[in-house]
Amino acid sequence: MLEDQPNIVLSNQEYNVVGKRPIRQDGAEKVTGQARYGADINLPGMLYGKILRSPYAHARIRSIDTRHAEELPGVHAVITSSALTQPSGRLVDLAEGAIHNMGFMCNNIMAGDKALYKGHAIAAVAATSPYIAEQALELIEVDYEVLPNVATAEDAMKADAPLLHDQLATISNPALRAGGYKNDDDDTPASNVSNHFEFSLGDVEQGFKEADVIVEKETHTSPVHQGYIEPHTATAQWGSDGRLTIWSSSQGQFAVREMTARFLDVPVGRVKAIPMEIGGGFGGKTIVYVEPVAAALARESGRPVKVTMSRTEVLEASGPTSGTHIKVKLGATKDGKLVAAQASLVYEAGAFPGSPVSPGCQCMMASYDIPNAFIEGYDVVVNRPKSAAYRAPGAPASAFAMETAVDELCEKLGMDPLEFRLLNSAKEGTRRATGPVNPKVGFIETLQAAKDHPHYHSKLEGPNRGRGIASGFWFNGTGPSSAIAIVNPDGTVKLVEGSPDIGGTRASASQMLAEVLGISAEEVYPSVGDTDSIGFTSTTGGSNTTFKTGWASYEAAQDIVRQMRERAARIWECPVDEVKYENATLTHATDADKTLTFKQIATRQNATGGPITGRAGVNPSGPGPSISVHIVDLEVDPDTGKVDILRYTAVQDAGKAIHPSYVEGQIQGGVSQGIGWALNEEYYYTEDGVMANSSFLDYRMPTSLDLPMIDTVIVEIANPTHPYGVRGVGEVPVVPPMAAISNAIYQATGLRMSQLPMSPGRVLEAMWSNGNGKSNGSA
Amino acid sequence: MLEDQPNIVLSNQEYNVVGKRPIRQDGAEKVTGQARYGADINLPGMLYGKILRSPYAHARIRSIDTRHAEELPGVHAVITSSALTQPSGRLVDLAEGAIHNMGFMCNNIMAGDKALYKGHAIAAVAATSPYIAEQALELIEVDYEVLPNVATAEDAMKADAPLLHDQLATISNPALRAGGYKNDDDDTPASNVSNHFEFSLGDVEQGFKEADVIVEKETHTSPVHQGYIEPHTATAQWGSDGRLTIWSSSQGQFAVREMTARFLDVPVGRVKAIPMEIGGGFGGKTIVYVEPVAAALARESGRPVKVTMSRTEVLEASGPTSGTHIKVKLGATKDGKLVAAQASLVYEAGAFPGSPVSPGCQCMMASYDIPNAFIEGYDVVVNRPKSAAYRAPGAPASAFAMETAVDELCEKLGMDPLEFRLLNSAKEGTRRATGPVNPKVGFIETLQAAKDHPHYHSKLEGPNRGRGIASGFWFNGTGPSSAIAIVNPDGTVKLVEGSPDIGGTRASASQMLAEVLGISAEEVYPSVGDTDSIGFTSTTGGSNTTFKTGWASYEAAQDIVRQMRERAARIWECPVDEVKYENATLTHATDADKTLTFKQIATRQNATGGPITGRAGVNPSGPGPSISVHIVDLEVDPDTGKVDILRYTAVQDAGKAIHPSYVEGQIQGGVSQGIGWALNEEYYYTEDGVMANSSFLDYRMPTSLDLPMIDTVIVEIANPTHPYGVRGVGEVPVVPPMAAISNAIYQATGLRMSQLPMSPGRVLEAMWSNGNGKSNGSA
Repeated sequence: MLEDQPNIVLSNQEYNVVGKRPIRQDGAEKVTGQARYGADINLPGMLYGKILRSPYAHARIRSIDTRHAEELPGVHAVITSSALTQPSGRLVDLAEGAIHNMGFMCNNIMAGDKALYKGHAIAAVAATSPYIAEQALELIEVDYEVLPNVATAEDAMKADAPLLHDQLATISNPALRAGGYKNDDDDTPASNVSNHFEFSLGDVEQGFKEADVIVEKETHTSPVHQGYIEPHTATAQWGSDGRLTIWSSSQGQFAVREMTARFLDVPVGRVKAIPMEIGGGFGGKTIVYVEPVAAALARESGRPVKVTMSRTEVLEASGPTSGTHIKVKLGATKDGKLVAAQASLVYEAGAFPGSPVSPGCQCMMASYDIPNAFIEGYDVVVNRPKSAAYRAPGAPASAFAMETAVDELCEKLGMDPLEFRLLNSAKEGTRRATGPVNPKVGFIETLQAAKDHPHYHSKLEGPNRGRGIASGFWFNGTGPSSAIAIVNPDGTVKLVEGSPDIGGTRASASQMLAEVLGISAEEVYPSVGDTDSIGFTSTTGGSNTTFKTGWASYEAAQDIVRQMRERAARIWECPVDEVKYENATLTHATDADKTLTFKQIATRQNATGGPITGRAGVNPSGPGPSISVHIVDLEVDPDTGKVDILRYTAVQDAGKAIHPSYVEGQIQGGVSQGIGWALNEEYYYTEDGVMANSSFLDYRMPTSLDLPMIDTVIVEIANPTHPYGVRGVGEVPVVPPMAAISNAIYQATGLRMSQLPMSPGRVLEAMWSNGNGKSNGSA
Repeated sequence: MLEDQPNIVLSNQEYNVVGKRPIRQDGAEKVTGQARYGADINLPGMLYGKILRSPYAHARIRSIDTRHAEELPGVHAVITSSALTQPSGRLVDLAEGAIHNMGFMCNNIMAGDKALYKGHAIAAVAATSPYIAEQALELIEVDYEVLPNVATAEDAMKADAPLLHDQLATISNPALRAGGYKNDDDDTPASNVSNHFEFSLGDVEQGFKEADVIVEKETHTSPVHQGYIEPHTATAQWGSDGRLTIWSSSQGQFAVREMTARFLDVPVGRVKAIPMEIGGGFGGKTIVYVEPVAAALARESGRPVKVTMSRTEVLEASGPTSGTHIKVKLGATKDGKLVAAQASLVYEAGAFPGSPVSPGCQCMMASYDIPNAFIEGYDVVVNRPKSAAYRAPGAPASAFAMETAVDELCEKLGMDPLEFRLLNSAKEGTRRATGPVNPKVGFIETLQAAKDHPHYHSKLEGPNRGRGIASGFWFNGTGPSSAIAIVNPDGTVKLVEGSPDIGGTRASASQMLAEVLGISAEEVYPSVGDTDSIGFTSTTGGSNTTFKTGWASYEAAQDIVRQMRERAARIWECPVDEVKYENATLTHATDADKTLTFKQIATRQNATGGPITGRAGVNPSGPGPSISVHIVDLEVDPDTGKVDILRYTAVQDAGKAIHPSYVEGQIQGGVSQGIGWALNEEYYYTEDGVMANSSFLDYRMPTSLDLPMIDTVIVEIANPTHPYGVRGVGEVPVVPPMAAISNAIYQATGLRMSQLPMSPGRVLEAMWSNGNGKSNGSA
């Protein structure tokens, strides 16, 4: 309800600035086209880099002959994988939950001895124009030995499956997303399964014995892409002092710095990464693709080099999320208590280990209180682009399985699906099958708010219409963050933060700074600093930014308050602890005549000791998990199988909505992506492993015409570990839509759709094969 | 002696990094052409601004018709003075000693109802190319009423002199450089003298009665220009949110922000000034000329606009130093004790009040202990470009008078000039005629070092050769300064400072930071922040930067040490005060087994509480005055009057030379400029007030071919108020050369040259009129 007041329930504290809706500081620049994105950088003498990509999904590279390309006039550099340093370091943890094997990442950026997917980078050229660079690519001669390609996890796990990596062995560690190579003298058999791990709680066998009702089901999902509007782009320039500057669009300039430094073998201190505005990331810009290529071409040519992906390159060679195959079995007593759950999750990692199967497992049952549970995960490599983080990585696919299974269970039990979830909801103190014990959570309140919502009580009339509900869980992330706040003589404050701003976090960080200082949000001018001008800040991801960078801004403001109190104490010649700061006013504990305002000290800062700068570096724990509960009404066209969303309501615990508009925006964005994933989006491959729909014309994302207004309800169960009660909000709304829509389609058609996307063709086929009648048939 | 070890005497403390000569971090970029200067900014859609300038030295502007210019295709904006806001505020103090009347500055940037000098800006145009902009200037029709021009202070002070400003009245305040308008109802007579003030100490009349020897003399100097290589340039862009960004080459991005904000009538918080590398300033880039013009054109056109001055514009319309006319009278007892001094200083301010006559008065006798003194100063407006700060503003001209008079006195007394100065030197505690009492100073030690120098004892043989000595005083400045220091995970540190770096101050600030932290200078990466990313820092000027910004860097390092100790205390679970930090190592007060290094904590900063950022804002007092004592050998060509410098030695108290190479560079640069001023440079005007030598071909600055190696001796009498004993070093070396050279010419020729420059023509004329014989004749 953007046009109205915020629909916020259970708000637990009122503030002056926090919770209000000031205009975001970067808004005007963005809507007028002045904001500068990655590709807006143009430098004198700059070259254009282009990347040669494998036409085969799986091939050994026998040789690469770049001589003819090098001879083309206008070409200044041609590189292959030898231009990058294969990092010897093992793993690096930069963003929440993201653990990367740098060797694999290096081979993904530029293929070593094998091309592992169609579109895999083989070589790169820098030339004086993009056209010359493209022409040069055609002059590079690659001798490929084409190998049979492995299309799916099912194929990859067969005993006689071709192996993508000779030295990849199965390890067992749910925390290690990125797998590892076995040593030469290790006789563990090579495998396409890089990771297999198990979680268990209680006694599952016994649990199912106690169950009166059991549901078993299998789901399949295809890889889908984040679909950010701005393709990957980077410009690199080497200083004559050997220092490297990179301009790029990313979710983390410090990750760009760290990763590029490793691949170029320079210390991080000698790399400056400048964050440009970002045209969408959704997890897909937490790692690097083109930055090291631009840097290597720039080093080779001695000129600045810009590399920008085309849309086809983005789809074929960046990181969609995994295709998945999930089996789930749930058991409940006849009064509706969940007593046992079991699941097996197989996620396709793409060409290198590292699918989000671990968070998929960890989120799947996390919002339920299940005494006996077993979950296992498989991370499997296939000849497809290496999967990357995509909004609540891993959770939407596992929620699709879990929440449709719960729906079936509710049907069998004859229970209202929200009543069922309220009865079985996890609470503070509930232990999850995957280990953690819940901190304070707002699951019950959010489910209750959904149940109380007019949408849930409205009548849905007409044929082929159905209503579905589903919930979703995400644990939310955190990480180190820095903030610097500079007091201007006019009483405004410059806030420098280290978090690239994807969803309005400059605004929310400014609000928290302003709240502490007692000034208005409009008096704060935030900016995102480069790696030379702000302290380390972990990647914007894991819904962590308003939590961690808000906290850093809060602490930087406290540092200003401390200094303001010292100034007043100096002026009043009294001990600092006799000075109080509240609402931008300094007062003396006992002498009521003594008052000074923030603005007065700001104006007099030089005369009272010098300029005032606040700084903070934090690494807070306890971001606090979130739940999102969705209600969807839809109609299925029986002639075409097309699904129209009629009404959508998303209810979500935000802890505290610092800027409700951007919480609503995040919820609406997550739902929109979820609807696309549910109904249309998929990577569609030919038998040769070539993506057949690598354009936005054929890779069909929902547009505003495909979507209704998405209503949002923000529940505020303050996160007790954050100064303002913040929980992450950006990811969890993408978790429930697929299941909610599947459940609604069942209500509309009687078809249990268990494969994504539930596209018109697939729905129509299911209807045909089921005689279009209501049944329990699985499609 | 650049090629050898530093010639430093009396160094009083040894440090690990301070006092060493690490390679400056900005060096490689500068020598390879990668460094980005003001005019290197090019923005999409950028227009080129050009300024129409008055052809007359004094004229009333009856009307300006810009219609035809506006109609020229490609022209996007034409502005006159009405595009700028005449600030109602009175004065602003930004750089040391610089107090500006903002109304006058506004009228200097764009003429109001009168053009007050040839080259005075009248209107400006922004167009798609510089050529169209120039063409458009020709289409602007200005109706001038030409008025008689006032060429010199002598003319300006005549009773019937034309008045430049109807409402300018004489005020009396030595602190107020910029004069002021009288009110309409004030019947103080209008005048071209904006300021007349007096200083006195003791009883001058009685002093002269006690004198056995008296010298009286008069000197004249012409305006000379700083001659920075990079012309003034600025690019301005307005955001669609009403915020203004300015890229320019200046000595102070905060001054650019403050001044431009006032002339454009926006709060400073809405202006972002980005400092580019600066190609020389020497005081001339402490104020704005083109920034407000670019900003006004950009506002009018809605496009980014770049305005760059030509060399002729720089010479005709920026700020040279004042022409001066000084009378001085000194009296000494026959044993060489100075007992009385009297001086009258008349400085030409140019078209608006504000010559450096006040510092001229304050420095003139400051290195002597004189019991009875009287000094008066006159600030006089003339139809010439408004004077601006130029290295030790005001002091070189008054030193020329004082130090040549002292030389005459020594001759009359038959005393060695260094012995005389040693005898009469001011010391700690000596009260100056202008008020202040000396803090700890190194005058005696510096004079003694000059006296001990081999140069002073060497034989100077051959005809037409002479040796001269002179000393110079400068009080040095300070001001508020900020620093931010960010610890990288690799143990390097990013230092952000607010001081534009003219003379190697990034290096010296890094050294002081490194010294505190116990790391190497090479491990510090310094940069100069824009006004959005660093706290307020006063302008680089008054030789204040290594003093104040070094201090800020020292404090920012202390802030890091504080946090490092807290981290160690957390790790060791002990109180913070049991943790010591020394030489990049943390140790426990009692448990010798407990040690951690700076690098270890740097690597573990996130795990021990979050990223570490140090910050400081300081406003230190006590920069501490400096003295410079010069010895020059020269030869006068009797046929041409050309003077060749044979040998030059400059001895100077630096307090502590943080980076001796850049102290030596400052000394050599100051001497070079002083030699140019002494022998060649002058503004040469036609009777109409048109500068006749407004190019570097005709305005003759010394090149390397004109100069010998300039030897330097650094004396280190630590300034007790600075953590490392720093005194300013950049300005004082320009003070003695003119007097030293005049004194040497006297030794060579017997001619007391008392007008600058002592150009070949002028020397030849003096020789002719004196029969080329040794005499006391004054030229």
